[in-house]
Amino acid sequence: MKKLVNDPFAVVDEMIDGYVAAHPDLVKRAPGGNGRAVVRADAPIADKVGVIIGGGSGHEPAFMGYVGQGSADGCPVGNVFASPPPDPILAATRAVNGGAGVIYSYGNYAGDVMNFDMAAELAGAEGIEVRTVLVTDDVASAPSTDDRRGIAGGFFVFKAIAARAAEMVSLAEVETTARKANARTRTMGVALSACTVPAAGRPTFSLDETEMEIGLGIHGEPGMRRGPIETADKVTDALLDAILADMPLAKGERVAVLVNGLGATPAMELYIMFRRVAARLSELGVTIHRSYVGEYVTSLEMAGASVSLIHLDDELARLIDAPARTPMFVQV
Amino acid sequence: MKKLVNDPFAVVDEMIDGYVAAHPDLVKRAPGGNGRAVVRADAPIADKVGVIIGGGSGHEPAFMGYVGQGSADGCPVGNVFASPPPDPILAATRAVNGGAGVIYSYGNYAGDVMNFDMAAELAGAEGIEVRTVLVTDDVASAPSTDDRRGIAGGFFVFKAIAARAAEMVSLAEVETTARKANARTRTMGVALSACTVPAAGRPTFSLDETEMEIGLGIHGEPGMRRGPIETADKVTDALLDAILADMPLAKGERVAVLVNGLGATPAMELYIMFRRVAARLSELGVTIHRSYVGEYVTSLEMAGASVSLIHLDDELARLIDAPARTPMFVQV
Repeated sequence: MKKLVNDPFAVVDEMIDGYVAAHPDLVKRAPGGNGRAVVRADAPIADKVGVIIGGGSGHEPAFMGYVGQGSADGCPVGNVFASPPPDPILAATRAVNGGAGVIYSYGNYAGDVMNFDMAAELAGAEGIEVRTVLVTDDVASAPSTDDRRGIAGGFFVFKAIAARAAEMVSLAEVETTARKANARTRTMGVALSACTVPAAGRPTFSLDETEMEIGLGIHGEPGMRRGPIETADKVTDALLDAILADMPLAKGERVAVLVNGLGATPAMELYIMFRRVAARLSELGVTIHRSYVGEYVTSLEMAGASVSLIHLDDELARLIDAPARTPMFVQV
Repeated sequence: MKKLVNDPFAVVDEMIDGYVAAHPDLVKRAPGGNGRAVVRADAPIADKVGVIIGGGSGHEPAFMGYVGQGSADGCPVGNVFASPPPDPILAATRAVNGGAGVIYSYGNYAGDVMNFDMAAELAGAEGIEVRTVLVTDDVASAPSTDDRRGIAGGFFVFKAIAARAAEMVSLAEVETTARKANARTRTMGVALSACTVPAAGRPTFSLDETEMEIGLGIHGEPGMRRGPIETADKVTDALLDAILADMPLAKGERVAVLVNGLGATPAMELYIMFRRVAARLSELGVTIHRSYVGEYVTSLEMAGASVSLIHLDDELARLIDAPARTPMFVQV
């Protein structure tokens, strides 16, 4: 294992140490939760719905990197590729509770669901109302949308939820927007190589030197098809075709696009893929309202990429366009 | 070679296609220069000194990613790890010329110096005054600062130059600030793995599975010492010690810090390194005025990182703090 780490079992705590030291104007550790709850420096915001996102670490900027102004209020941080336990989730919930309730949004993984649900129950017992909206954007992961995992499209869902909460509306209104944002978001990815969880010390899976896997999950979950690596245009077409088969778009409709790098893939390749996405959507008469190209939800040093689309209506376009200022994402 | 590309010889043009398609509000191609000159969407800005940065591609966000508001006005884009020829440099120069002269700033590499100097001469013949300030921040590359190469610290130099030009001062004043910013910036890096230039198809060098190389250049130039990989703290200390030996800092002095990833190194490892930088500077009584952690100057999918410090005075602190909005870097 070739990594710039100290103790492989201390990587998450040391990362959070560095993170709060680097960005004290934007984020802080909440009390309790074993130091694993990161919240906005100015949390709680009175009368605002608190937005909690989270999950395992190793996906940076997701999830901790999106805590800040106009974005998530707090984030419990799990071990690498593992759900946070209820304790830091509850610590983050208390710290962001401004009296208007709290919304949880995270990828649909069994461990996360169990732990976040338990924290929601504990928060409820303390008088904090919690609603939960799961992210289920990964087209490759299951036929039914309810059974799907959450991957890079969570960026759009979190962005919409946070911007809606910043409008100072009720918990029920934020939840409605959250469900709509998730229902209109789709992602498909491709992996070219594995990554190594520091505490494990060896790659999570293996791919031959000429192989790629379409639909592979961000923790190495099996994908849809493995085969020889193809050109950027062919791979992009395969991702986009799967998305459009699942969420057809008509001429004149609007989307935001995210071409996301999984860790080791250079920006050069992501822009080459974006070029193809733009050409394909243009042929269909679908308007790209806003574009994101870069690393938004990673899997440590995995090589690969994903394409996400969110089908915008007026409300979602307004929310995606809203400003945000966090340590790892700034939009003006 | 495992990359998401189409024709390995078309990667740069296809990347620029994607880039201008993704960010039409911020950047555009200038006329001429074989489509290899990217400039601000609103260029030229009347009476403002035009800021041109550039060099080879494969270092994204550097250099094209920093073209935008409050940042560079234009960027000629070379092949991967190769200087742009004079033609796109001249095209970018013409397109950003607002009548107040143009400043060139780029890393000190022989090919870049030759081509940018030639372009400056051609621009001069057209009545556009050009001044040049080389970036020479790489402590590992030579004993004398004048002979050093430019690496990640260029981010600070470009930021200061662009913010100074945005203050609508003269070309001579921008040049003075540029020389000061470069003189007060130092970088040291470490590489853990090589990368592959698409048109070459094989890695630029090799490192054993347990080896690292301190001081290795961003194109694979030989470093200062190769040896077994050490802990993040030890590696960070080695980088910081070399910087501080070359640019001593006294108690009470102020710096901005950049912990830069070379491509494949996860944000997790960069924050672990930042943690150590912050602890060491705190021991010395040196104040961290602003911190940057992430990928700012990369080498395709190389694994590794660098630490850069810029020793701030009041002017440089003001310029580093100034807002900027570009496709790959936003600061408010």
